[in-house]
Amino acid sequence: MGTSPEAITGRVRLRRNREDRIASGYLWAFEGEIERVDGDPGPGDLVDVVTHRGRFCGRGYFNPRSKIRVRILTHRDEPIDEPFLARRLQSAMALRARVVDGTSAYRLVFGEGDLLPGLIVDRYGDVLVMQILTAGMERHRDRLATLLHDLTGVAAVYLRNDARSRDLEGLPLYQQFARGAAPTQIEIHEGPARFVVDIARGQKTGWFCDQRENRQAVAPFAAGARVLDVFCYTGAFGIHAALAGAGSVLGLDASEEAVAAARAHADVNGVGEQCAYRAADAFDELRRMHRAGEQYDLIILDPPAFARSRHAVPQALAGYKEINLSAIRLLRAEGFLVSCSCSWHVDEQMLWTAILEAAQDAGRDLRLVEFRSQARDHPALGAMPETRYLKCFILQMF
Amino acid sequence: MGTSPEAITGRVRLRRNREDRIASGYLWAFEGEIERVDGDPGPGDLVDVVTHRGRFCGRGYFNPRSKIRVRILTHRDEPIDEPFLARRLQSAMALRARVVDGTSAYRLVFGEGDLLPGLIVDRYGDVLVMQILTAGMERHRDRLATLLHDLTGVAAVYLRNDARSRDLEGLPLYQQFARGAAPTQIEIHEGPARFVVDIARGQKTGWFCDQRENRQAVAPFAAGARVLDVFCYTGAFGIHAALAGAGSVLGLDASEEAVAAARAHADVNGVGEQCAYRAADAFDELRRMHRAGEQYDLIILDPPAFARSRHAVPQALAGYKEINLSAIRLLRAEGFLVSCSCSWHVDEQMLWTAILEAAQDAGRDLRLVEFRSQARDHPALGAMPETRYLKCFILQMF
Repeated sequence: MGTSPEAITGRVRLRRNREDRIASGYLWAFEGEIERVDGDPGPGDLVDVVTHRGRFCGRGYFNPRSKIRVRILTHRDEPIDEPFLARRLQSAMALRARVVDGTSAYRLVFGEGDLLPGLIVDRYGDVLVMQILTAGMERHRDRLATLLHDLTGVAAVYLRNDARSRDLEGLPLYQQFARGAAPTQIEIHEGPARFVVDIARGQKTGWFCDQRENRQAVAPFAAGARVLDVFCYTGAFGIHAALAGAGSVLGLDASEEAVAAARAHADVNGVGEQCAYRAADAFDELRRMHRAGEQYDLIILDPPAFARSRHAVPQALAGYKEINLSAIRLLRAEGFLVSCSCSWHVDEQMLWTAILEAAQDAGRDLRLVEFRSQARDHPALGAMPETRYLKCFILQMF
Repeated sequence: MGTSPEAITGRVRLRRNREDRIASGYLWAFEGEIERVDGDPGPGDLVDVVTHRGRFCGRGYFNPRSKIRVRILTHRDEPIDEPFLARRLQSAMALRARVVDGTSAYRLVFGEGDLLPGLIVDRYGDVLVMQILTAGMERHRDRLATLLHDLTGVAAVYLRNDARSRDLEGLPLYQQFARGAAPTQIEIHEGPARFVVDIARGQKTGWFCDQRENRQAVAPFAAGARVLDVFCYTGAFGIHAALAGAGSVLGLDASEEAVAAARAHADVNGVGEQCAYRAADAFDELRRMHRAGEQYDLIILDPPAFARSRHAVPQALAGYKEINLSAIRLLRAEGFLVSCSCSWHVDEQMLWTAILEAAQDAGRDLRLVEFRSQARDHPALGAMPETRYLKCFILQMF
């Protein structure tokens, strides 16, 4: 697009009475909401969205291959150009300057939550990892990389463009440096802890910044505790617990590779003696440990998303209930349970009900010490409940 | 009761199929749930609660004057004696030892959340303030005061037994020292801030510990900001903001007395220059300020409970929407709004909807930076949603 604004190549007219949600700030127009498309916009082309009567209600990018036909970039009649993108990035950076503290790893751009749908940017020390999820945002790839590089002064910008959801957008899967170059294993710190993030091979962009504040919040319950870190990935929750004075930490993860990384992380942090790891299926292993009569003071459950679609919710809830029940059975009286879910389709109330049912099946009372969500560098857009996805209950079981 | 267990003076039989809620951990049995009362228990007497078929499901205290006929103390068949009360208090203290940090003011016992229905205990420095809300707990007053005094080693225990709700229990309203003696104006600290709590004349027990962690959470948004602290009471939110680097703070409260205390607090904390206070009706004053074109970077809304009963909810929601709308109109672009409600009857979703509607009426987008609840020294009992009452949305307005 050079320095001139991107051309508007089409006009998307909504069906009657379908404009309210978008007018109230929602950023997606679905296939079924659209009456007619004027012009012949291709994947990623800029379009105006108008009401049934033709009134402007937003400007965004189109993709005829996606059920989300349009993702709105702005509700104003303003050009989509370099200054526009720079303003959005600066606004994202200004928020992080306020809410990120004591870490070199955080989310700089959280897609819709930063009014930049389809764009994820994580900062790991001196490197930014961009993940572009849509054809419309791919169009701005090089300009965004340059802007981010210039605005933040990092050494390198890496494109982690291998998310499977890019298939739905008709985008290729690839990884490469867009600006500069650096090793793809990056040491980061998070409070007192140090970790190595593998930006090329790790899950997502290599690290879960969304749980950072929750890892801190768990520290007070770790002192002197026998800790079980279930779905531990590369060990972050448990290592924070060990640094906060846990007597012992056992981490479980299905991936041998994750468990090996967790062991290395424990050693790097000087808590290798307290921390043990096991590659195992969490459901089976917790049942086995219960039969063996094991007891813990603090159990962290940070499972992967059990529900990736609305249809999967009933089965996911059964899974959340089962894993929570297994964990509760392993907790001593007055022990603490940290129970998370990152499934957007399973909302706070659903997870809460699953936990209460699990507690009742186990014959245990519980109290809620704190309910938490995703870290503050993952702001949720008010009009889009989809952007508020992480739940983290800190509970005490009697 | 001396050192022997309190005698069980009656048996309360629930109506058919009314045992599930209590069996799942709920602590109240309502008038309409009760089939029959055997024996002749008076206000505060200990009773057993049994299912329609006569199976034991809890032990608690009775009050024929209250719609909440029984408040369960335990779901087990165990004596209600001094060791029982001591265990409950020790459990409450153990939780605070983990979650309270950097303050001399916190809630030591949060009624139902600590499985001690009807009992509130706040600690302010070297003094405990007890507030007993029910006849059954009043029965244990002196023993509780002695236990608390001995277990905590404080200088004095004060009875702030003048809550109006005691009328419903047939209890007198009074204040007095139960153990030791001390001035009723107590200096406390909360992080870097210092305040004087008036345990005899202040609202509730003199201070709102439930917002302590939320006051800390607001600090990052205060640096350099022009701050408006609405319903400021004795100034805590705004003074924390000033200490975190706010350029200016304006506090509003309907009470001249609260505003005078806030001024004194600002001076004590060395931020008297930055802080101004005005006794005014918040609704009127915010509208007036909007007409005058005033703009703020950070606005805190911490109103009193607008809904004290289910019937009051519609009017309360209109009030929350109006005050949020007025605040949003005073916020500059990308400014922050901290919007609270302590009405249990207005749940998180209701308040969220009121805020979204206010934002839409103001033509503003918003993002949720963090959702918070009551401080961790106010644990919510899983089975009693009534114990989870405080909502605090930290929002950024575009």
